[in-house]
Formats: sequence, structure tokens, C-alpha cells
Amino acid sequence: MFKLLAKSGRARRGEFHTPHGVIQTPVFMNVATLAAIKGAVSTVDLKEVGCQVALCNTYHLHLRPGDKIIKELGGLHRFMNWDRPILTDSGGFQVFSLSALRKIKEEGVYFSSHIDGRKIFMGPEESMQIQSNLASTIAMAFDECVENPSTYEYTKESCERTVRWLIRCKKEMDRLNKLPDTINKEQMLFGINQGGIYEDLRIENMKQIAELDLPGYAIGGLAVGESHEEMYRIIDAVEPYMPADKPRYLMGVGTPSNILEAVSRGIDFFDCVIASRNARHASVFTEHGTMHLLNAKYEKDDRPIDPDCGCPACTNYSRAYIRHLFKAKEMLAMRLCVLHNLYMYNHLMENIRKAIEEDRFEEYKKEKLKDFNMRL
Amino acid sequence: MFKLLAKSGRARRGEFHTPHGVIQTPVFMNVATLAAIKGAVSTVDLKEVGCQVALCNTYHLHLRPGDKIIKELGGLHRFMNWDRPILTDSGGFQVFSLSALRKIKEEGVYFSSHIDGRKIFMGPEESMQIQSNLASTIAMAFDECVENPSTYEYTKESCERTVRWLIRCKKEMDRLNKLPDTINKEQMLFGINQGGIYEDLRIENMKQIAELDLPGYAIGGLAVGESHEEMYRIIDAVEPYMPADKPRYLMGVGTPSNILEAVSRGIDFFDCVIASRNARHASVFTEHGTMHLLNAKYEKDDRPIDPDCGCPACTNYSRAYIRHLFKAKEMLAMRLCVLHNLYMYNHLMENIRKAIEEDRFEEYKKEKLKDFNMRL
Repeated sequence: MFKLLAKSGRARRGEFHTPHGVIQTPVFMNVATLAAIKGAVSTVDLKEVGCQVALCNTYHLHLRPGDKIIKELGGLHRFMNWDRPILTDSGGFQVFSLSALRKIKEEGVYFSSHIDGRKIFMGPEESMQIQSNLASTIAMAFDECVENPSTYEYTKESCERTVRWLIRCKKEMDRLNKLPDTINKEQMLFGINQGGIYEDLRIENMKQIAELDLPGYAIGGLAVGESHEEMYRIIDAVEPYMPADKPRYLMGVGTPSNILEAVSRGIDFFDCVIASRNARHASVFTEHGTMHLLNAKYEKDDRPIDPDCGCPACTNYSRAYIRHLFKAKEMLAMRLCVLHNLYMYNHLMENIRKAIEEDRFEEYKKEKLKDFNMRL
Repeated sequence: MFKLLAKSGRARRGEFHTPHGVIQTPVFMNVATLAAIKGAVSTVDLKEVGCQVALCNTYHLHLRPGDKIIKELGGLHRFMNWDRPILTDSGGFQVFSLSALRKIKEEGVYFSSHIDGRKIFMGPEESMQIQSNLASTIAMAFDECVENPSTYEYTKESCERTVRWLIRCKKEMDRLNKLPDTINKEQMLFGINQGGIYEDLRIENMKQIAELDLPGYAIGGLAVGESHEEMYRIIDAVEPYMPADKPRYLMGVGTPSNILEAVSRGIDFFDCVIASRNARHASVFTEHGTMHLLNAKYEKDDRPIDPDCGCPACTNYSRAYIRHLFKAKEMLAMRLCVLHNLYMYNHLMENIRKAIEEDRFEEYKKEKLKDFNMRL
């Protein structure tokens, strides 16, 4: 299903074939937590900004509106009117980061909803069932995302449990894909590598999960408290043990610079809320550096955010106008900046893919790292 | 400048020629208070929902970002990227409804900004200067909008002052339109009829302001506390005294039913925040009645808001999805409903125009009033 088209150093240019179309990699997935991009951006807009894959959240959709309702309505694709691939995360990360009073047991996690305090249990089987109801293209394994730093002992224990959970995930997914009323019978399960900042645990874990021969593998538990250097060190350590014929997904990463660094270390899939979240706070990424639109110097600046950008914000509105919208607390401000940042990320990935195809990725990376570190 | 194309009863089908294009009447203007439609709707979207005229607010734009900044940036059309007509209200209504500590004198009004309490003076000349800086297509006269009910004596006194103000507005607008650095040298001034709920004051006032031979006339001071029946009675009383060769604008009105009633009484221009405000609260207008999308019965309803509607919301998303977005507090919910309601209003006006052209407006009105009173 994954076809490696070209390499430039360790950077990979590939195609991932799915029942909802082909994903060109490296790819940045656009986060639509609750089946919608925050900032009043619709799935119609997502096509306009060049999004290939939407990422939705199992935990949030389980609580609201409920995965069973989405199943009754024909699954997530139909619900949110999106015919391209959707990746759902497993809910694990949110269970551990958002919910109160969580208790981790071998069978799964007992926790209280962050909305109404309702007691909920989620284990590997439940996560797969919810994701099967949502009918996403790619389901993620239910794992424990260990905080950084955690002790070696705790990380090891957690990792081992996560492997046992992964085996249960795979079994349950296989079962669900065979049920007659399952919407997407070709739902794919990606495994997740854990092990905190401990290289030996990361490698051992990766070897174990690689044996399960899943259609893709993610590196989880990074960008959760450690430095960028530690993150790159861990990727360097674990990457040689990731199957070369499967896509590799670095979860929750990152800035444009982080993405360049990770691509150069052989990563294919990315996602991060930073693109849309920063935009909602008037902070935009451009090919020439970052920009904070509330800065007084933009008050009378009638140039677009980035004169070279082809996004719906840059082709129609000025910095001065968008700054005014933020000051006046008009929702349109957020929408325009989210559209811009998503377009910028999606087109950055396009440029990365081209640079790999033309085997000039390291030069491209060096040049762009300089640009991305500029504050305009 | 105003060309009457057809009549059906007292309902008028016309064309109003402006330097920013021809307005087909009857028309509903879409309210963009702060140079943006609330609900993350852009001027690009406005074209998609069939908007002919955007209405912006002098008082609000004077405070934020400031009309002088907008002038430096080339005027409102350029600032908000809108090449069709813009009408600016005079600021009078907001001075009287939003600001604290106002003092009305013959020269104008002293008041405190509702944002920072800053003391501001606005009189007829200031209002014209601000609107000239904004460079709208149509400027509205600076008037006092008297609350309903007010005493006969106060209303009479206020009306007379408003006429004196209107004469000053006209003189100042004539002066400004001749200045070399004025952006729109063909800015038009509409007069505003006042007189509360007193027919004789309304008629006397209308006769006086008609003499000034302005390019258009509005009825102000309605929909501010009186009943619908009183409003229709006042329109009936004053309409025969409005110049037949000028457009007539009923300010701040209204529901689809109000619009039908007013069109049948010879009104050509409308504006109202109800279309976008109700939408932001999940209340939508359709050709078949009104609908509140938070209603539990829409939880699993995968039909669009209105299956016959061609708006960006109805062609892409279901009631169940939009209801979910409201419940999850996703901004996209508001955006989709605002797009729907504006499209609905703009296309209602199109149907009204067609019914007048085909001289079947009274039947059309009777039929639609029944529909619009339905709660779905």
C-alpha cells in the first residue's frame, strides 16, 4: 500500500494508497478535532487550502455527538462531507491529558469525561469499536502516551502494556472489519512506538510492534515536554528499526522547522494543532518567517500576509484589515489566518516533496530553516 | 439615478445606479458593521450568497480602526475588498443606543465611547466627514432616532432639529465631494424621515426633507419598540409623500414577513441584523418557515437545513452536523448558518423582484406569509 517513489538522503517521497484515495507523502494532516477545523473552516475550505488528510479525534467525537450517532449518519466522511482520507487518533492521548481521575489497569483506562464528569471506560477494544463506528480511513492504536520526563521503570512498564494493548487492537480491528454492518471494512490500524526518551526502550518497542506487520507506524510520546534535540535524537535512534516499506508518522509535530528536521530523518506523516491554534492567536507562518498580526506596525500595512502566497486570505485581504478584525474581535480574523496557515503548511509539504523528487532536500532544508527562524 | 421598472400594486421593481454598480430593488443590504459580517463571513462569501450592498457602521468604524486609517488605506471598498455598493449609516443610531452620557445640543451630540469611555463629539458635519473618509457609495444623514414611545412634544422638537441637521449634512457633503483628496467624489446622501408614531409629524417631516431633492430617502425610527401594526400604519401614512422617483429605505427592518409587508407598501431598500444574529444563535429562516437547529429532533437528521436551498451550507452539510457544531461550540456552526440566512434573504428579494415584474406580488406575498409563519 505504501510505495516509495524517491529518496534524498534519508528523506522519503512516497504514495500511500487508501480506499479514500492516494496520499502523497511527506504529508501534513489538518486537525479537525470535532469533525471541524477550529476557526470556522469547513471541509470545502480544506480542499481549497490543499489538505490531503483530515485528522479527527476519537475521544472528543465519542463524547460529542457520539460515535454511534455518526455511524447511524453513515460515518465521519459523510457526516463532515469529506471524501479524502481521515485519520482518527485513538483517544489515548486525550484520556491521559484531558480527563480527570484516570485509573490505568491492564484492561484499559477508567476516567471521567472532561465535559460532564461522567465515568467512562476505554480499552483497546473500545477504542477500535469507536473508530470503526467513525469509519475513518486510518485508525490509531490505543496507547499510553507517557509524559516526558518519566522514570525508566515506569516507561518500560507502560511500553510493555502498550504492546499488549496493540495486539488486542489488531485482533479487534480484524474482527470489526469483518462485521456486515461495518461502514469501512478496509479500515487500517497504525501501531505507535513509545519508550519516552530512552533509546533502548524505543528500539525494543519498535522491534516488537514491527513484527505485527501493520500498514503503518507512528512515533508517539514526543513533543510532550522534551527538547527538540531530544526529539531528533529519539527519531534518529528508532528510525532504522521502522519498516522501510510502511509510512512513518510523527504524532503531534510540529513547527515548519520541526517538520523539515523530521523529514530529513525519514518521517512521512505529520499533524499538529500549532498551524490552526497559532493562527487563531494572530500568529502566522510564512515562507519568509513568522509574523504576529497584532503588531502595531501592521496597522496601515496594506500588503497581504505573504505577497507570494496564493491562499484565500492573501489573495483578498491586507495585514491592516486582518489586524483590524482581530482588534474588533471579528471571528473572520481567525478564519482568515487559519486558512492561511493551513495553506502554508500544505504547500510547504508540496515543496518538500518536490525537493525530495529532485534530490536536493538537504539544500532546501538548510535554506528554509534560515527563513523559518525569521521573525517578521 | 433611480429607474422604476415595474409596479405590482404599490410594490416597486427598480434599478438604482451608483458609481459602484446597479442595485436591483427591492434589495436587502447585508450588515457588515465593522467592515466584516459577524460569523466569519468574508466579502468573498458575500458574493457567493448573492449580496448586492454591504452596510457598514460609521460609529463603529470611527472608533475602530478609525476612519482616517481607512482613508489612508484607500477607503472601505479597498479595505474590505468589496467592489459593489456600500451604504454607511450615520452613526446616529449607535450614538443614541450604545454610548453613555450623551448630551444632545443644536450643534450635535457629546457622548462617551462604549469601548473606552473617551469623550467624542459628533454632529452632522463630523458624520459626513467620517463617511467621506470611509468613501461609501451611500451616506446616511445624521439624525436622532427617537425611541418609541416618546412624547409628541419631544418627537416634534427632535424632528425639527433633525431637519436642520439634514440641511447641514447636505451642505457638508456637497463641500466634501468637491475636495481634491476625497476618495468617492460622487458619494450620495440619503435623508431620513423621523416623527415617531405620529402620522402628522411624519408627513410634515417628509414634506420638508423631500424639498432637499436628495438621491434617496429612508424611514428611520421604526422597529424600535412599536408594534408591527404601528410600523405598517406609519409606512402607509408617509409613503404617499415620499418622492416616487427616489429609492425608499426602511431602516433596520426586518423579518421576511416584515419585508413582504413593507414591499407591498412601496419600500425598496432594507437592512437588518436579524438575518445574521439569529443565525449565530442557531435560528434559521427558510422558504418553508423558521427552524431552531438546537432542537433535539435534528440530532440524527441528515437533510440540509432546506433541501431546496442552494447556499454553501445546504449544498454541503446536514442539520445533524450543524447541530453538532453548535453543541461542540465550533465557530463553523455560526458561519454556516449566517451564510444560509443571508443567502435566503438575498434570494427572497430576487423572488420578490420577479413577482413584481410578473405583476403577481400580492398572491406571492399571501402565499409566503403563510410559509414564513411556520415553525419547523
